[in-house]
Amino acid sequence: MKTYQELGKEELMSLKWQLEKAFEEEKAKGLKLDMSRGKPSVSQLDMAMDFMDTLNSESCMKTEAGVDVRNYGIVDGIPEAKKLMGDIIGVPAENVIVCGNGSLAIMYDTVSRSMTHGVGGCTPWCKLDKVKFLCPVPGYDRHFAITQHFGIEMINIPMTPQGPDMDMVEKLVSADESIKGMWCVPKYSNPQGYTYSEDTVKRLAALKPAAKDFRIYWDNAYAMHHLYEDRQDELLEILGLCEEAGNPDLVYEFCSTSKIIFAGAGLGAVASSKANLDEIRKSLSIMTIGYDKINQLRHVRYFKDIDGVARHMKKHAVQMRSKFEAVLAILDRELSGTGIGEWTKPNGGYFISFEAMEGCAKAIVAKCKEAGVTLTGAGATYPYGKDPKDSNIRIAPTFPSQEELEMAADLFVLCVKLVSVNKLLEKRESKPIYVSCRKTVGKAV
Amino acid sequence: MKTYQELGKEELMSLKWQLEKAFEEEKAKGLKLDMSRGKPSVSQLDMAMDFMDTLNSESCMKTEAGVDVRNYGIVDGIPEAKKLMGDIIGVPAENVIVCGNGSLAIMYDTVSRSMTHGVGGCTPWCKLDKVKFLCPVPGYDRHFAITQHFGIEMINIPMTPQGPDMDMVEKLVSADESIKGMWCVPKYSNPQGYTYSEDTVKRLAALKPAAKDFRIYWDNAYAMHHLYEDRQDELLEILGLCEEAGNPDLVYEFCSTSKIIFAGAGLGAVASSKANLDEIRKSLSIMTIGYDKINQLRHVRYFKDIDGVARHMKKHAVQMRSKFEAVLAILDRELSGTGIGEWTKPNGGYFISFEAMEGCAKAIVAKCKEAGVTLTGAGATYPYGKDPKDSNIRIAPTFPSQEELEMAADLFVLCVKLVSVNKLLEKRESKPIYVSCRKTVGKAV
Repeated sequence: MKTYQELGKEELMSLKWQLEKAFEEEKAKGLKLDMSRGKPSVSQLDMAMDFMDTLNSESCMKTEAGVDVRNYGIVDGIPEAKKLMGDIIGVPAENVIVCGNGSLAIMYDTVSRSMTHGVGGCTPWCKLDKVKFLCPVPGYDRHFAITQHFGIEMINIPMTPQGPDMDMVEKLVSADESIKGMWCVPKYSNPQGYTYSEDTVKRLAALKPAAKDFRIYWDNAYAMHHLYEDRQDELLEILGLCEEAGNPDLVYEFCSTSKIIFAGAGLGAVASSKANLDEIRKSLSIMTIGYDKINQLRHVRYFKDIDGVARHMKKHAVQMRSKFEAVLAILDRELSGTGIGEWTKPNGGYFISFEAMEGCAKAIVAKCKEAGVTLTGAGATYPYGKDPKDSNIRIAPTFPSQEELEMAADLFVLCVKLVSVNKLLEKRESKPIYVSCRKTVGKAV
Repeated sequence: MKTYQELGKEELMSLKWQLEKAFEEEKAKGLKLDMSRGKPSVSQLDMAMDFMDTLNSESCMKTEAGVDVRNYGIVDGIPEAKKLMGDIIGVPAENVIVCGNGSLAIMYDTVSRSMTHGVGGCTPWCKLDKVKFLCPVPGYDRHFAITQHFGIEMINIPMTPQGPDMDMVEKLVSADESIKGMWCVPKYSNPQGYTYSEDTVKRLAALKPAAKDFRIYWDNAYAMHHLYEDRQDELLEILGLCEEAGNPDLVYEFCSTSKIIFAGAGLGAVASSKANLDEIRKSLSIMTIGYDKINQLRHVRYFKDIDGVARHMKKHAVQMRSKFEAVLAILDRELSGTGIGEWTKPNGGYFISFEAMEGCAKAIVAKCKEAGVTLTGAGATYPYGKDPKDSNIRIAPTFPSQEELEMAADLFVLCVKLVSVNKLLEKRESKPIYVSCRKTVGKAV
C-alpha cells in the first residue's frame, strides 16, 4: 500500500473525487454529534444513581467526629473526605484540602491568590513585570485559559511519551526567575494519554528553580481512570519525592471526582505540603465558611473507601474501553499506512490525541463540523489556541453512544483523508513556483 | 429606679460584691455554650430533611430545557434556579447568576477579580496605590475580613435605624476616586437588624461616585428572614432604582439559601446589570465548567417556587421568634432603666445588637467566656476588629436550644452588670486624678 504522499497527481485527483462524493453523502445524513469535551456519558452517570439516596435521615448527617454537615463550618473539608481524596492520589489525608465541586476552580484560585498575595512570602505576581508558566504541549485548554486570563506568558514544552522534555524544563526553570509555574497532567495526560515516567517525575521533584515561588501545578485528574485491568500506567507519588529532594513546597496537586461520580457535582481537592496548605487555608477562611460538606459526606458514605472507588471505576472502564477501541479500530483500518495521521493508544484517561499532516488540523475540524460532528477546536491543545504546526486534534470518545461514536469516527477519518488529499494537491501545485528559491514551501498565490 | 450611673460608691461596691458572688455560682455550673455565630439550630435543619430525597431517579435529573444536571456545563446556573433566587430578592431571573454553596465566596471572587482584572474596563485595583471601601458600622465581620485581606482601606460609616449615614456616604463617594466600594446588609442588617429606609435606598441608587468603578456590595442575606407575620420590614428593590437613576451598573447584589435550607449546602447567587453579569460570566467561564447543578435543581424541586420558600421560612420563624423574644425578655427585665446597655429589637434577621457602656464590650465578652459562653468577639463588628468605643456586642440567639439560650442570656446580663459596675468604680477612682487637667477620663495608674 502506498502512502498518500507517494500517490501521483492523477491518483490524488481521483481519490479527492471519491472522498468528496462520500463526504456529501455523510453530510446529507444530518448528523449532530458532540465529541468536543471529555464528558461522561449518560449511562456512566446512570451507574451512580444510588449516590443520591446515600444521606436521607437526620441520624446520618454527622461526621465520625460528630460534626453536623448541614451546618456552617470546617473550611478545609471533613476528615473522612480528605482521606478518600488522598487515597485516590496516594497521599496522606493531612496533606489534602477538600473544596467544592471540581478542581478547576481550585487551580484558578491558586493562580489568582498568587497574583494578589504571592506565594510563600514572595512578591505578589501582580506586582511583577513578567510572570511565565511552562506548558507541556499538547495540553489541556482550560489550564492555558487560566494563565492567559491572568496575563501570564506561556512557554510551550514539547511532550514525549515519557512526559515533558525535561532537559528543556530544567534549563528554563533554573535560569529564569520569572518562570513561576508549570502545568502538568501527569497521568493519562490530556490529550495524549501519556503517563510521566519515573525518571521524569524524579527530575521534576528535584528541580532547582531560580524562582523561590515556582510551583508545579500537578493536575492528577485521571488517577483512577484506567481503561484496562491488565494494562495500567503507574505514576510515582510526587509529594513524597519532593520532600525527599528537599523541595517540600514545590507541588500543588489537584484531583476531583467529577469524572468518578457526577461531572456536575463531584468534589475537588488540592494536596500539598503543610506550609502550602496553611497558606491556602488562610485565604479559604476569608473566602468561605465551608464548602458543601453534605456532598463530601455523601461521597464517603457512597464509596466507603478507595476500594469502592476502584470498583466503580471498573464499571466505567467497561464502557469506556469499548468506545476507545471502536475509535482506534476505525483509525487503524482507515488510516494505518496512509502517512496522513498518527494517534495515541492510551491505557486510560479521556482522550485520544491525533496528529494530522502539518497544516491540516483546522481544516479537518471545520470539515467535520460542516457534516454535523463537533470536535475540540483545532489549536485548543496549545497555549493561546495556536498549534504552531496546525496538526493536533483531541478526540473525546466518552460522551456519544457507541453507535453515534462510530458514525462520528467514520466521518472523522473521511475528513482527514479529504483534507490531506487537498493539502497534498495544493503542495504539488505550489512546488514549481517556490521550490528553487526557498526551503519553506509556501502557498501558491 | 436609679441608673447605675446614679448609684453611690457604697451602693456600687455592694452590688459588685453580690454580682461577683452570682458570677462565681454561674461559673461553677460549667456551661459550654456558643452564641458566636449566626448558625441555624439543629431543629431548623431537621425541618428540611425531605430536601435530601428530592432527586432520586434518572428521570428527574433534567432541567426543564432538558439539560442533564449530573454532567458538565451551564456556567451561570440553571434557568429555574435563577428564577427561584431572583424571586427571593425580587429581581428578574435574567439578572441572576447562581453559583456554588454560599454567597461569601462570590463576594470574595468579586473583590478578587476587581483586584486582578478591574471593573468595567477600569484599571485593576492591584495597580492602584490606594483602594478604599465604605463600611457601615457595626457591620458583618466577614465582609470586613475580605477587604482587609486584599489590603483595601476601610472607612467607618455610622449606621442609623434608617441605614448608613447617607450625607457622609454621598460626600465621600462623590469626592474620592479611590473609594471603589461599599458593604451593605440592607435588610435586617447584621448585627442591628435594621432595614434601610426607602429614602436611603433611593439615595444609594442615585449616588454619583467619583470612581467609575465604584460598586455597592448589596448583601441581601436576610430577604425572607422575618420573625413575625404581622411585623415585616420591606426593602426597596435597588437594581431597578439604579436603572431608573441612570446608574444601571452600580450594584452587585448577593443572596443565598444558606439560612433557608442548609448552611453547609445552600446556593449562592449574585444579581446585577447585564454588563456586570457579562463581566462576571467571562471570569466564571475560565474558573469553572459549572457549579453544582444537582443542588440547584434539588432546590427548585424541593421549594417549587417562592411560596414554597416563604412557607418554609414561616416554620423557621416560629422557633426563631421564641428565641429572640426570650433573650429580649431577659434583657428587658434585667437591664431596662439601668443605663448600662441598649439593644435592638429587630423584626427579622439573625442578630440582636447590644451597646454596652463605652469601654465595656471586650470585658463583657471575656467575662462570658470565663463562665463558658462564647459570644462573637468584641470589635468583630468593626473593620480591623477595632470598635472605637469598645461598646458593641453581637448576640446570635439562633443556634443554642431555648433552654441553653436562656442560661446564656442570664449569664450575659450578669456579666454586663458586673463589668459596668467595675467600670463605674474605676471611673470614680480615676476622677480625682484626671478630672481637672483633661477631659478624657483615663485609667488611674
